Amino acid sequence: MSLIVVGTMAFDAIETPFGKTDRIVGGSATYVAYAASNFVKPVKQISIVGYDFPQEEMDSLKSRGVELAGVDVIKDKKSFFWSGRYHLDMNTRDTLVTDLNVLLDFDPKVPESYQESEFLMLGNLDPKLQIKVIQQMKTRPKLIVMDTMNFWMEVAMPQLEEVLKMVDVLMVNDSEARELSGQFSLVKAAKEIMKMGPKYLIIKKGEHGALLFYEDQVFFAPALPLEEVFDPTGAGDTFAGGFIGHIAKTGDISFNNMKRAIIVGSALASFCVEKFGPERLKEITQKDIDGRIQQFVDLVNFDIELVK
Amino acid sequence: MSLIVVGTMAFDAIETPFGKTDRIVGGSATYVAYAASNFVKPVKQISIVGYDFPQEEMDSLKSRGVELAGVDVIKDKKSFFWSGRYHLDMNTRDTLVTDLNVLLDFDPKVPESYQESEFLMLGNLDPKLQIKVIQQMKTRPKLIVMDTMNFWMEVAMPQLEEVLKMVDVLMVNDSEARELSGQFSLVKAAKEIMKMGPKYLIIKKGEHGALLFYEDQVFFAPALPLEEVFDPTGAGDTFAGGFIGHIAKTGDISFNNMKRAIIVGSALASFCVEKFGPERLKEITQKDIDGRIQQFVDLVNFDIELVK
Repeated sequence: MSLIVVGTMAFDAIETPFGKTDRIVGGSATYVAYAASNFVKPVKQISIVGYDFPQEEMDSLKSRGVELAGVDVIKDKKSFFWSGRYHLDMNTRDTLVTDLNVLLDFDPKVPESYQESEFLMLGNLDPKLQIKVIQQMKTRPKLIVMDTMNFWMEVAMPQLEEVLKMVDVLMVNDSEARELSGQFSLVKAAKEIMKMGPKYLIIKKGEHGALLFYEDQVFFAPALPLEEVFDPTGAGDTFAGGFIGHIAKTGDISFNNMKRAIIVGSALASFCVEKFGPERLKEITQKDIDGRIQQFVDLVNFDIELVK
Repeated sequence: MSLIVVGTMAFDAIETPFGKTDRIVGGSATYVAYAASNFVKPVKQISIVGYDFPQEEMDSLKSRGVELAGVDVIKDKKSFFWSGRYHLDMNTRDTLVTDLNVLLDFDPKVPESYQESEFLMLGNLDPKLQIKVIQQMKTRPKLIVMDTMNFWMEVAMPQLEEVLKMVDVLMVNDSEARELSGQFSLVKAAKEIMKMGPKYLIIKKGEHGALLFYEDQVFFAPALPLEEVFDPTGAGDTFAGGFIGHIAKTGDISFNNMKRAIIVGSALASFCVEKFGPERLKEITQKDIDGRIQQFVDLVNFDIELVK
């Protein structure tokens, strides 16, 4: 099964209570690709980078089965750069610098070789670019998943509403779900958001896990309790990559399989936060992933028959 | 199996974003008793009230199998009174009034008829009173569970450390676990706290569920995603009551049974928040409880074999 991933490939500079990095590789599509490529090949990447994006990173992605035909390289501009500082709770952060650079020119093109892909993951981007990608697909993918953020709710709500009608699964965090719906209760928020288009809604709650809503059903996946969250940057994108990677691998878009995909995404995200940037994601093996998934089983498993 | 519950029986006045009550019945031991009496009879209550505590409430408890031989009634003093206002997120609240009244005289006595009880639930109280109760037990209960709060960490840490050495299970919320241990990570906090005495630690995270730690194992129970949390007062005590009620009913103090007990406690707590005070707890039937427990199963259940 083939998967298209659209999003940023960028540089980040990160400060956490545990340390500080200079410019390291980041970007939503980078994290999604590193996570998803554990499950499905090829991952067909659509992004834009500047002259400064490292060739070794491109090579590393290629070696994992990530196709880069859809990645524009702009010779006279720099890559998108974000810098931020996390607070002690790691759930809140201050943006220090946002240099859009090449992102100002991003006009995503779906290469001919990407057509007929069955799965489409739209990372957080200007909703009009997300729409453009969907419109270029000659055959509608079997499943379209999108991420977004509060910024677009504030500056591009009509376009966001339009793309929401075109997708199957929306992934947002709890504060974004509240802002998008105008509801504080996440259960009520989910109902409102599903009226806007997506049949499935995933609400990410960081260290408090994630909720999957579908019709009147709800599934909850915890986050793994960790001794240390070293750097949460990219954890949400890694979650998305594990989720869509599992779905694309299995080709099964049932609610039950989405539950499994959320556990896979949560497992991948729990690795991501162990080191700065996507570093840890490059090291892990299938055995590591299987072991981590087993930890999720142990974490929530109880013998219900004996309760009654 | 018999259960002793020690704690307050009191009045609360509550303001939430959804409404406001005059003085209604509350208190940790009240909530524990209403919850636990669904599973085990008798519940042997130890508390203190003033002349103003309603006879109909005493009768209601008695009719559910709650013994009141250990409840002192002070004829010339008022019952403990607390008043608070919740913020929109319902996880934070401001205390408006605390009138200790009879609580200043509380000197818990274990009646002879309570001796030989196998289970002891110590609600949040001055740790020196918690110690007094344990010391009066001629036979050490099979399981001693205690609750506490940050106030005692600030004014009575040596006594709190002493009682921690005497109990099996400590229940605290996340901020209390952090304060008690000096660790921000809950995993690290749990390790530190288990060194202080309790073999089991339950960290309550309100709407984000609860964690159970034992040796190097951890179990997570979610809170049920609710459309509305009407009044969270007493939810923690109700959780405790469901937990110890299930343990006392089954007589099984294994880690696996504690997992089930936490699900039962979470189910009971999810009812508690649906109305002001313990009102909802008085209405629910065994069928309601079974249905709610099934919702917890559905909430976290996934078919892991198919993930790999």
